[in-house]
Amino acid sequence: MTIGVLKEAADKRVAVVPDTVKKLKELNLDILIETQAGVDAYFPDSEYEEAGAAIASHQDILQKADVLISINPLEEPELKSLDKGKMLISQFQPFFDHDVADRLNGLGLRAFSLDMIPRTTLAQSMDVLSSMASIAGYKAVLEASRYLPRYFPMMITAAGSIRPAKILVLGAGVAGLQAIATAKRLGAQVEAFDTRSAAREEVKSLGAKFIEIEGAKEDTGAGGYAVEQSEEFLKRQREEVQNRASKSDIIITTAQVRGRKAPILVPKSTVDNMRPGSVIVDLAASTGGNCELTEDNQVVNHNGVTIIGDSNLAALMPQDASVLYSNNLFNFFKILVKDGELSLDMNNEIVSGALITTAPETTISE
Amino acid sequence: MTIGVLKEAADKRVAVVPDTVKKLKELNLDILIETQAGVDAYFPDSEYEEAGAAIASHQDILQKADVLISINPLEEPELKSLDKGKMLISQFQPFFDHDVADRLNGLGLRAFSLDMIPRTTLAQSMDVLSSMASIAGYKAVLEASRYLPRYFPMMITAAGSIRPAKILVLGAGVAGLQAIATAKRLGAQVEAFDTRSAAREEVKSLGAKFIEIEGAKEDTGAGGYAVEQSEEFLKRQREEVQNRASKSDIIITTAQVRGRKAPILVPKSTVDNMRPGSVIVDLAASTGGNCELTEDNQVVNHNGVTIIGDSNLAALMPQDASVLYSNNLFNFFKILVKDGELSLDMNNEIVSGALITTAPETTISE
Repeated sequence: MTIGVLKEAADKRVAVVPDTVKKLKELNLDILIETQAGVDAYFPDSEYEEAGAAIASHQDILQKADVLISINPLEEPELKSLDKGKMLISQFQPFFDHDVADRLNGLGLRAFSLDMIPRTTLAQSMDVLSSMASIAGYKAVLEASRYLPRYFPMMITAAGSIRPAKILVLGAGVAGLQAIATAKRLGAQVEAFDTRSAAREEVKSLGAKFIEIEGAKEDTGAGGYAVEQSEEFLKRQREEVQNRASKSDIIITTAQVRGRKAPILVPKSTVDNMRPGSVIVDLAASTGGNCELTEDNQVVNHNGVTIIGDSNLAALMPQDASVLYSNNLFNFFKILVKDGELSLDMNNEIVSGALITTAPETTISE
Repeated sequence: MTIGVLKEAADKRVAVVPDTVKKLKELNLDILIETQAGVDAYFPDSEYEEAGAAIASHQDILQKADVLISINPLEEPELKSLDKGKMLISQFQPFFDHDVADRLNGLGLRAFSLDMIPRTTLAQSMDVLSSMASIAGYKAVLEASRYLPRYFPMMITAAGSIRPAKILVLGAGVAGLQAIATAKRLGAQVEAFDTRSAAREEVKSLGAKFIEIEGAKEDTGAGGYAVEQSEEFLKRQREEVQNRASKSDIIITTAQVRGRKAPILVPKSTVDNMRPGSVIVDLAASTGGNCELTEDNQVVNHNGVTIIGDSNLAALMPQDASVLYSNNLFNFFKILVKDGELSLDMNNEIVSGALITTAPETTISE
């Protein structure tokens, strides 16, 4: 079986790194990698060749590979050009692109969507949402530091003392926790909020203050996403954010509800209350944003407050992001492949969860 | 006496912040501040007015103020337009601009150059070189993080482990030490080198490894700058850097020799040895650079190695940079002013060290 790894059209990451090529070879798979696929993540073609991959053109890979791997899905015209029966592995986000499975089925294609792997303990090693969210949380703090006109740490110098920066993190999932950890590392004062009471201990263990807001619906079982909260609760949350915003140098928001528009936690009136020079990083930008003034993939300046709406921060750290994505992918392959061929156990909830199209004929059990 | 604070032509910082206006008023000084002088450092005109300053146009300030304050010196045509006898306080860098004192004397102007304040214990609170170098060292690490495609800290995740980034800091003066501290905060592995053996303990106390290179000339008494080293020593240093460069993710260089071109510590051959994706931040860019490939105020990409030659990193953090500069300036004013007038004690080595022109007539002793 031949695995084809495509160069991303608009992303510096690459789905498979040279180290993973070696491991995939050990599963008796042949690897075709697109010319220059890893160059923006600093993996030159030569390293792929040394690892045992063959370099090929985009068109060659589309034709010859049995399984096509990418980070971002192929565009529709290219999908239509593919032979029936091909297997695609990417992040199709069916919760947001609701009819993607129907379109793929209609084209006779088969697809695993890595973002649909259940977020269970067993599947942790394959969880691309977690590994990319962790990078996004880390990068959110560093991006904020670019725009903040102040130090993060407290500084006691001969020229006077500087108070530490104050950072408010909304949502303490994977991205939020990594943002908290990074801001603490840099010496900031951090406070955080999450609707899950389980997050309280995690926030505190990182040395940050946990903000209590009464009356949240817990989101156990929502696959790592938040559940939708009542309008009354959201109002209380917005009031609490409003109270703290004028004292915060940075607000990092990470609240997404799977398959829905992100809730507005930072309305325009709150931004108006913030000091000029403050920074908001909105990690929910791609689903509408947690800040009313966020624009997806834009940096907005509103009366001196910078609002960063970069929805793909993981791609700003393409080397490690590629390594982790590639590791996730390899761990997934280990349960898909037997004797160098796909062998799908549909009783395995990871396999059945990630398969968004109808099962291919090679499935071993239904 | 009227103090005029000018808006910088090409710098986001401002020499005096509103808090300092209040303190200068207590010294019985009148303050004129140029319209929008603080806006890029997030100090609006309204805050200056509340603090007791009057807002004025650039031309008005040049005419009316007895003392003109700025971070960067005025350009030659403006200097020529000034009335004789005015006092200027700025950073004239006479060690690099060798005849600036002669030109100012020729125009009948008087000038204190804050970069010439002796770097003694007594003058620490006025040391703009230190407060700006500290910011530059902090920002050097954060700028490097923008371009590095990797994490700084070690990450042990379900998707595999990531080794910490390795950072080499050359020169452990104020900027180097702050770079070491910041990189350690972010979880990197840091090693550093300095020709002064006194730096060894400071480097170690920050948790970094001190690299030993034999045969350095010590730079005690060189005002915080390095002394020029023998060609033989520089060769040994370059060899040591060469040995470590291929294992480093980031090199931060801070070696400047007062009044001379910076020594080359990272030749092209060493950059060629570094991994693609690595980053060099050259804090000596304005005096020629410690890396052979550095271009002043440019970001250069050499075979995937990013070389950052920003020579004014402090201006990237304009608010705190302005606060510290302004504090330094106020501490200096305290020894210059008596009963609301300049009263210069030429026996004070801080006053005589900073005055680069002939003394004005108000001097109290020679």
